[in-house]
Amino acid sequence: MTKQETRPLVEICFTPHDFELYAGQYEIAVVIDVLRATSAICAGIHNGVEKIIPVSTIEEAQAYKAQGYLCGAERNGQIVDGFDFGNSPFAFMEPHMTGRTIVLTTTNGTRAINIASKVPTVVIGSLLNLDCLSQWLIAQGKPTIMLCSGWKDKFNLEDTICAGALVDAMLASGRFRAEEDSTIAAKFIFRSAKQNIFAFLKASSHRRRLRKLNLNRDVDFCLTPNTRPVIPLLQQGELVKMKL
Amino acid sequence: MTKQETRPLVEICFTPHDFELYAGQYEIAVVIDVLRATSAICAGIHNGVEKIIPVSTIEEAQAYKAQGYLCGAERNGQIVDGFDFGNSPFAFMEPHMTGRTIVLTTTNGTRAINIASKVPTVVIGSLLNLDCLSQWLIAQGKPTIMLCSGWKDKFNLEDTICAGALVDAMLASGRFRAEEDSTIAAKFIFRSAKQNIFAFLKASSHRRRLRKLNLNRDVDFCLTPNTRPVIPLLQQGELVKMKL
Repeated sequence: MTKQETRPLVEICFTPHDFELYAGQYEIAVVIDVLRATSAICAGIHNGVEKIIPVSTIEEAQAYKAQGYLCGAERNGQIVDGFDFGNSPFAFMEPHMTGRTIVLTTTNGTRAINIASKVPTVVIGSLLNLDCLSQWLIAQGKPTIMLCSGWKDKFNLEDTICAGALVDAMLASGRFRAEEDSTIAAKFIFRSAKQNIFAFLKASSHRRRLRKLNLNRDVDFCLTPNTRPVIPLLQQGELVKMKL
Repeated sequence: MTKQETRPLVEICFTPHDFELYAGQYEIAVVIDVLRATSAICAGIHNGVEKIIPVSTIEEAQAYKAQGYLCGAERNGQIVDGFDFGNSPFAFMEPHMTGRTIVLTTTNGTRAINIASKVPTVVIGSLLNLDCLSQWLIAQGKPTIMLCSGWKDKFNLEDTICAGALVDAMLASGRFRAEEDSTIAAKFIFRSAKQNIFAFLKASSHRRRLRKLNLNRDVDFCLTPNTRPVIPLLQQGELVKMKL
């Protein structure tokens, strides 16, 4: 066998809906929901939030809330009635969050985390922890799958660009190979977008959705790379700060 | 409402697996399997094949064969044992095919045609009939969905580039709008690939697969645009030549 054939794979799955088609041989899964769940999680863990418990349904979040947990819930870009916060990263950066265990459910991101949890190691990716995460992934050298959260199981641009950026760095290290067309396409899309991610995403559907909700400040924050160099790690169903 | 909001949508669905997420409001579906089913169908219809009956399973094809039909079956790039041909376009261009009704089942393409058949009008797209098809679609001005056949329900590059080319022409006409991120992404990928589709697809997974099977001649034929200006139309479960 040539060197190329023995290198570990790094691949990108565009949506949770497709994940079963890609599952199997990966040792690390990176879950990405740039606008806004995984950006908020990186911001929270960087702010010293002790643990974030991702849950898929509002009912699960309500059960935690009844037990006294600080709970966030977002659906369709808005805070769900009766909850303390949604998935705005600014909520996760407030001083009273430090040291707390919080619960979060979002339209796409927390469901994707739970879908990825059959992979042995699950970490959280966003543009906020891009370089820190790609360096760690390269150092591990293990078969890696990027799971983009998408929008209601459909492909989305911002998650694909973030996944493409991680893969581009990993392939450039020479330690990985990619075989899926989805991975090759994401790398090309990232390279087209790279010079100006803001302009590139002007047309993206979710950015339009958030702009209508006056969430431009959140969008600007989530699209600015490398401001939160932490790696949230899923440990027994809870997201904690990886010790680096 | 502005002009933009009333224009019909044209969108791209990357795989049959995702089609249910996009289905609903479309009046025309374009099924694309560049390597090689929809290219072979265009070549056959252009060669005067009377009707092509697309079936999803080998069992259905065998039942037709028992009735005396000329039957093709392809799985994983190869002709299935006991069948007359696979999905090589050259088989569809032989003189004895002219005037015949034939039956075809392939790994991805014929299944995609049957999945798309809930849309009122289903037509066949490939690079071989690109300009002819985009002109017809623009003239119709109806909500249109492109269904890429992909590879075993996963995203593939060549179908996405072909769909991106059709959408690029349709949007350039000013008569359509696109909202899905998949559509925006395919348009970008097509524009990156446009100058040299052969070179761009060098890395594609299915091209590698076909090269191993010594099918470079088929690949070259399927990637050369506009050599077969016909539109195969699905009519009562059978593909026939649209009268233009």
